[in-house]
Amino acid sequence: MNKQLSSLHDTIALGDALIDPLHELIRSQQLEFIMEAHDGLSAAVAAQAGFKALWASGLSISSSLGYRDANEASWTQMVDVVERMADASGLPILVDGDSGFGNFNNARLLAAKLHQRGASGVCLEDKGFPKMNSFVGNRHPLAEIDEFSGRLRAVKDSVPAMVLVARIEALIAGYGLDEALTRGHAYADAGADAVLIHSRRSDATEILEFARQWAGKLPVVIVPTKYYQTPVSAYREAKISTVIWANHNMRAATAAMRTTCGRIMAEESIAGVEGEVASLEEVFGLLRYDELSAAEDRYLPQHT
Amino acid sequence: MNKQLSSLHDTIALGDALIDPLHELIRSQQLEFIMEAHDGLSAAVAAQAGFKALWASGLSISSSLGYRDANEASWTQMVDVVERMADASGLPILVDGDSGFGNFNNARLLAAKLHQRGASGVCLEDKGFPKMNSFVGNRHPLAEIDEFSGRLRAVKDSVPAMVLVARIEALIAGYGLDEALTRGHAYADAGADAVLIHSRRSDATEILEFARQWAGKLPVVIVPTKYYQTPVSAYREAKISTVIWANHNMRAATAAMRTTCGRIMAEESIAGVEGEVASLEEVFGLLRYDELSAAEDRYLPQHT
Amino acid sequence: MNKQLSSLHDTIALGDALIDPLHELIRSQQLEFIMEAHDGLSAAVAAQAGFKALWASGLSISSSLGYRDANEASWTQMVDVVERMADASGLPILVDGDSGFGNFNNARLLAAKLHQRGASGVCLEDKGFPKMNSFVGNRHPLAEIDEFSGRLRAVKDSVPAMVLVARIEALIAGYGLDEALTRGHAYADAGADAVLIHSRRSDATEILEFARQWAGKLPVVIVPTKYYQTPVSAYREAKISTVIWANHNMRAATAAMRTTCGRIMAEESIAGVEGEVASLEEVFGLLRYDELSAAEDRYLPQHT
Amino acid sequence: MNKQLSSLHDTIALGDALIDPLHELIRSQQLEFIMEAHDGLSAAVAAQAGFKALWASGLSISSSLGYRDANEASWTQMVDVVERMADASGLPILVDGDSGFGNFNNARLLAAKLHQRGASGVCLEDKGFPKMNSFVGNRHPLAEIDEFSGRLRAVKDSVPAMVLVARIEALIAGYGLDEALTRGHAYADAGADAVLIHSRRSDATEILEFARQWAGKLPVVIVPTKYYQTPVSAYREAKISTVIWANHNMRAATAAMRTTCGRIMAEESIAGVEGEVASLEEVFGLLRYDELSAAEDRYLPQHT
Repeated sequence: MNKQLSSLHDTIALGDALIDPLHELIRSQQLEFIMEAHDGLSAAVAAQAGFKALWASGLSISSSLGYRDANEASWTQMVDVVERMADASGLPILVDGDSGFGNFNNARLLAAKLHQRGASGVCLEDKGFPKMNSFVGNRHPLAEIDEFSGRLRAVKDSVPAMVLVARIEALIAGYGLDEALTRGHAYADAGADAVLIHSRRSDATEILEFARQWAGKLPVVIVPTKYYQTPVSAYREAKISTVIWANHNMRAATAAMRTTCGRIMAEESIAGVEGEVASLEEVFGLLRYDELSAAEDRYLPQHT
Repeated sequence: MNKQLSSLHDTIALGDALIDPLHELIRSQQLEFIMEAHDGLSAAVAAQAGFKALWASGLSISSSLGYRDANEASWTQMVDVVERMADASGLPILVDGDSGFGNFNNARLLAAKLHQRGASGVCLEDKGFPKMNSFVGNRHPLAEIDEFSGRLRAVKDSVPAMVLVARIEALIAGYGLDEALTRGHAYADAGADAVLIHSRRSDATEILEFARQWAGKLPVVIVPTKYYQTPVSAYREAKISTVIWANHNMRAATAAMRTTCGRIMAEESIAGVEGEVASLEEVFGLLRYDELSAAEDRYLPQHT
Repeated sequence: MNKQLSSLHDTIALGDALIDPLHELIRSQQLEFIMEAHDGLSAAVAAQAGFKALWASGLSISSSLGYRDANEASWTQMVDVVERMADASGLPILVDGDSGFGNFNNARLLAAKLHQRGASGVCLEDKGFPKMNSFVGNRHPLAEIDEFSGRLRAVKDSVPAMVLVARIEALIAGYGLDEALTRGHAYADAGADAVLIHSRRSDATEILEFARQWAGKLPVVIVPTKYYQTPVSAYREAKISTVIWANHNMRAATAAMRTTCGRIMAEESIAGVEGEVASLEEVFGLLRYDELSAAEDRYLPQHT
Repeated sequence: MNKQLSSLHDTIALGDALIDPLHELIRSQQLEFIMEAHDGLSAAVAAQAGFKALWASGLSISSSLGYRDANEASWTQMVDVVERMADASGLPILVDGDSGFGNFNNARLLAAKLHQRGASGVCLEDKGFPKMNSFVGNRHPLAEIDEFSGRLRAVKDSVPAMVLVARIEALIAGYGLDEALTRGHAYADAGADAVLIHSRRSDATEILEFARQWAGKLPVVIVPTKYYQTPVSAYREAKISTVIWANHNMRAATAAMRTTCGRIMAEESIAGVEGEVASLEEVFGLLRYDELSAAEDRYLPQHT
């Protein structure tokens, strides 16, 4: 059967009854890795590479769409992209839901629709709407704890099958560890399945200290985009649950396209880049053209 | 002003009155080059590299969406992608309209909507619906000449401002040069602004022979994906109007993501790829975060 | 819980395991009725009135969108409308899938996506793409039997949970009863769960004769838009399974809006129509504003 | 030419150069009327009835989609509906932009996209995001004046061709006339082309008093949904510019569909309602099937 269609069915069949693989991944005792993707193609590439789950990055999807990561893309545009990722990869997807695109009502609607389209989890951050990318500027006002907890509770009540990750922006906003821990505990009480503690420092010190004091109340997810030099052994020791490689497919694609455009422009030829870009056959393989060909044999009249 | 918004305005202001730059490019006496893009990000990269116009490739956009290049993506999904490309790049866009997504009525509706969203031209190929990618399999039945000419006439009558390129698939379908020429002349009579003669041979012989016998009746556009080794000097001599580098951004992105995913998977780290992927600053630059920051200073209350 | 979300969950939870209520309705021994709807509001009204299932009419949805019923609306636009109908009504929906929006591959993709968005069944008619409304003009070429059967088989293999209705256009196209029966049997062999025999005559003679000769091989669905004067007792006697009231919500809305616009225009006032239009409270009730209000009490901080 | 396509062209051709008819309507010395529509069909009906402009009501569009009027529909879903209304009617459209779907950046993006799709103006109200319908509940916190003025300035700078209406919710929120006037003057300074003063009282006293003290600084737009009994002569005397009949097509459709569903359900027949619903011919006329038929004669091969 069509890989797209069968993965769609698997996701639906899971429904609320079975445990989604993303739940198991987040809860597992070993350190797990989730790879960013931002469209059907990048999702298929990450699946082919062997990743167990995908991160539907707000930054990467916004960039792919040509939007800034400031909630310029509408929530339905995000949902549409996630659907394509799910269909093309068949992998569990944790979606970067930003701040939930409004209040509790917008957040639960978002989560329900993401679930319908094949996502396994959603991560909400404790900011208002619209948000600005955590690595840009210094305007990062935090949401009030009880208001944000209401968003979490609404999502958990409405779509219990979804993995719900509460993202703590206290360190990004400059509030320090105590605030981060206070928020983490409140979010756990509100029903989060895991917390994501975010930092934009170039070392992991504050992340690791958070994990130490957090003491495993819930699984901890991290995004080491800025502190990329820390070896993962440090995360294993700190009992971190999951590492998200948050934007590297998008950044790899950007660099490669910039280089390729530059060469083609300068050389007035594609002969030079032919050996460096993917073959059409590779693309056809990623997207299962073989399935379509077999289906044509099966369903089209033979005289056509 | 926001680059996105200003390019949007420029496009609208052009309307039916002014000559779209794509018309000038297609008609110019020198050989011109159009670069493939498939989403907002790739369009911004190609603009940054200096290309004058973009090719909204059906294959690349389908692939990006995780669809096969067999009209799995709906016509409105294609239009939505083209809109993002136009807004993110500000460049004239020639859209691969496949066979027009149905009959003359679907084709003219497609063209009108593409024009509304910022495209400058549309290329229609003389096949039925759904189509299969020209490089896949051998089922490539051609449309009847008068039926396809009706599609061209309908588009030209409905959206005269759009550059209309008629793509001849006769060589792909194995019908030979005479059929290709017959069709080209019929399409010229139907109002095409240019013809695109397509081939999947690894050398340009049949393309160049077509150009010789065509004798400049209308500008000739080519897509040397398979005969990439032919030097562009041959096209200059043959008075080819425009070369489309048809899928190389998508293929460059695919290869880079495959390599990056592989390394991250194997190394359990992003430290190794950090120097090879684009920086966040580069991405922010491409998408004009500076404009947003300046606008925040201008439009947000200062006490926020 | 939110009615929208809960109906969404019910639909998903049904998955492939449970029997969808639409299957039971089509197979039931008593005559059943399905009401047309074309957007979330009309679906909610029909649910409120007590109908057990909805017909997502291609004509009505096209009209609602301002398109002609000639496949101007894209297949994804249709899917988006069906999603809104499912969420707003919680009812099983049989979708008018026209001819499947292309070949077997488009048809199965359409069916999979309709299923994902909450539809319970899809009806495909044995025409090509694009189609023209059966009541308009005389260009109604039929698809070849084996090609159309391939579309049916592909849908059934890909989305077995969906009720698959094969619509026979032979009488519309003027081919007579034998052709209709031949086609019906072929479509049954291809996996259809029911046949829809369509007619545009003002009496039900040919429909009833079809049912007699068909002899209950599969459930028979009819659309008495043109032969509306036939009493339903005739259908009960003929062992018809299901009657679709195919476009009467859209036509009721059109007439009412025409009248209301006319009066407001003439009277320069809304006072005259106030007693004839629905109250805002009725609208708020249909769309469950009470659920939102209760949720605000539950999830919003009380000091807000 | 296709009415849809030609109205699309007219709108685009207007661009930034010509004065949009909506500007003239708002500024005219005589009292003008704008009729609500919520989809392509209702827009076509209102155009047929002779209205000069349309109100794309947030409440009506939300209801049509099956959403609550609390920003459940995404901003791109709203834009898509407005596009269908513009194409089906060819009329100038003033869009209910709610609070702008976020901050100044979301508001200007919304306005630019509405303009691209054929709208002539946007109305923004001085609330936060998400908003709740003004007739529901008592949670209606107002936006700060300078923050909301920033939204207005951003829209005016980005899309100067659009008619910008600032909607004052001070009376709805219980702040009284002085606050309403203060806000009106601030919004005028920020670049609004008109103010909409909203009230949910059953008489027009506070509206008329506002108009008296406002003294014609800018055109005044009103929405007499609740004070429908006030004769329009009072508005003429008060030099009101424009009256919006804000939701009566949606409410007329709702009542008619409720009645029609009820009768069909009770009568098990459509014979009784046949004379009361619009004929298919009327629907075909509204949506210009004649244009399609003529185009088929022109563009389809005659042997088909």
